[in-house]
Amino acid sequence: MRNLDEDNITQAVLARHAAMPDERLREIMTSLVQHLHSFAREVKLTEEEWFAGIQFLTETGQICSDKRQEFILLSDTLGLSMLVTALNNRKPQGCTESTVFGPFHVEGSPEYALGDNVAEGVKGEPCFVRGTVRDINGEPVPHASMEVWQADADGFYDVQYEHLEAHQGRGTFRSGPQGEFHFRSVRAEAYPIPYDGTVGRMLKALSRHPWRPAHLHFLIKAEGYETLITHVFRDGDQYLDSDAVFGVRSSLIADWVWHEAGIAPDGSRVDVPFYTLDFDFVLNPVQAGKAA
Amino acid sequence: MRNLDEDNITQAVLARHAAMPDERLREIMTSLVQHLHSFAREVKLTEEEWFAGIQFLTETGQICSDKRQEFILLSDTLGLSMLVTALNNRKPQGCTESTVFGPFHVEGSPEYALGDNVAEGVKGEPCFVRGTVRDINGEPVPHASMEVWQADADGFYDVQYEHLEAHQGRGTFRSGPQGEFHFRSVRAEAYPIPYDGTVGRMLKALSRHPWRPAHLHFLIKAEGYETLITHVFRDGDQYLDSDAVFGVRSSLIADWVWHEAGIAPDGSRVDVPFYTLDFDFVLNPVQAGKAA
Repeated sequence: MRNLDEDNITQAVLARHAAMPDERLREIMTSLVQHLHSFAREVKLTEEEWFAGIQFLTETGQICSDKRQEFILLSDTLGLSMLVTALNNRKPQGCTESTVFGPFHVEGSPEYALGDNVAEGVKGEPCFVRGTVRDINGEPVPHASMEVWQADADGFYDVQYEHLEAHQGRGTFRSGPQGEFHFRSVRAEAYPIPYDGTVGRMLKALSRHPWRPAHLHFLIKAEGYETLITHVFRDGDQYLDSDAVFGVRSSLIADWVWHEAGIAPDGSRVDVPFYTLDFDFVLNPVQAGKAA
Repeated sequence: MRNLDEDNITQAVLARHAAMPDERLREIMTSLVQHLHSFAREVKLTEEEWFAGIQFLTETGQICSDKRQEFILLSDTLGLSMLVTALNNRKPQGCTESTVFGPFHVEGSPEYALGDNVAEGVKGEPCFVRGTVRDINGEPVPHASMEVWQADADGFYDVQYEHLEAHQGRGTFRSGPQGEFHFRSVRAEAYPIPYDGTVGRMLKALSRHPWRPAHLHFLIKAEGYETLITHVFRDGDQYLDSDAVFGVRSSLIADWVWHEAGIAPDGSRVDVPFYTLDFDFVLNPVQAGKAA
């Protein structure tokens, strides 16, 4: 440990962690240090580049607030979030696939009854969403907790408006006795992830756009089933093949069907054209010995 | 790009970067994404661990200020700084080796004449430092700019004292006509890196101490020579084999020699016991076509 150089430094760091009692932490740190060092060696990272990295990470942390999580955006845009989601949500064929959580979920969104309008005045074309929650054997999952959240017609979530106090475009309800659900909202629109920070600068340097295809977020919990975090994507969106956060899965793409003004599926009269979206969710039962 | 999973996500991210015009950036991002993804796959990173990582990085950024650089400490304690230093400062045998820069250097430290006391009232046992700056052929390097900085007897640098305005324990001077230098300061002491932040929490979790062996920092610049960033370490220090930032190189260890109170090497009378340190620096000439 008295003559460290570019060849023996990695082993020296790993040796320092040999005494650590927590085995999982040792496993993680060993892999992290090896890959971090291999990266620096492989590209022969210069001191200027190293310092640019230090500054980038520092600024990324400093942009974060209770309403902005730039490190999640960084993880999302580097495909890490989707990778971690995929690694941890392997499901049997036929179950609804998971995708990234994203940075715009809010704890404690308002509770609604089936059929309610979760838009709460948010700007956009009316959309009536309906479907069922079933399990992999086709059995209905009644009383499942369903959280939904989405951007408005301008591509912003409620938390992105500085002075907005109320929840808009998000809500929690429960599936009915036959696993059925329906609610009213507005049509999901494509939007750019926030790009006025370090991640936006990175995307620009990488010649990448910040857009996500239109989607509706769902978080579905039911006793005895694995929690499902996913989106439903709108078919035909121009960004389906270049989602800035790599979240698209074919099985999650659905039609938003256009209708003339008139009677909506819930029997109400709508004075403007509206959309309907049908989507059924399939949950995976919790395996014995595995947490939900 | 519509059906991303744990197997194809890495290629999908790399494909997204194919159009980037900056070749060096593409090289860096390709290696970074591959290693980041390999790390997550190798340890099968859970969603909870991923989020703990997001929180750790966020907090690390938020601790940073104009006086505190927690991301440099993180890089230092993971051995990355020393690796980057070694990769970028390969020198012929006989040249003084480089080591980590550390987070406590300050631009524009006060200028001193040879023989001055750079301690400026800082607490510690008197120490008289002397030596020469030569090149690899033994030729003296006159008028080299030499910056020195160090912690005080309590293990703190001036910038770590919240209300201290003046520079203490740091200064810049120039080597004399024969490359010689000498100055007065205080004896360098071992100290812990700041451990009240995320890096301190990490070290604790890893069963590692935060201590650095006693050392004196030098930054030496002279026209026609590669800039030298290094330390001189104090022989006998108990942390020489476990430097928290992996900076020790045998060739940089030197004796701080103890003397009874009396006449110092500069002819002055010292009423307390004092130390002398002799150390000669050897610079590497700039190779044709390479920046200093």
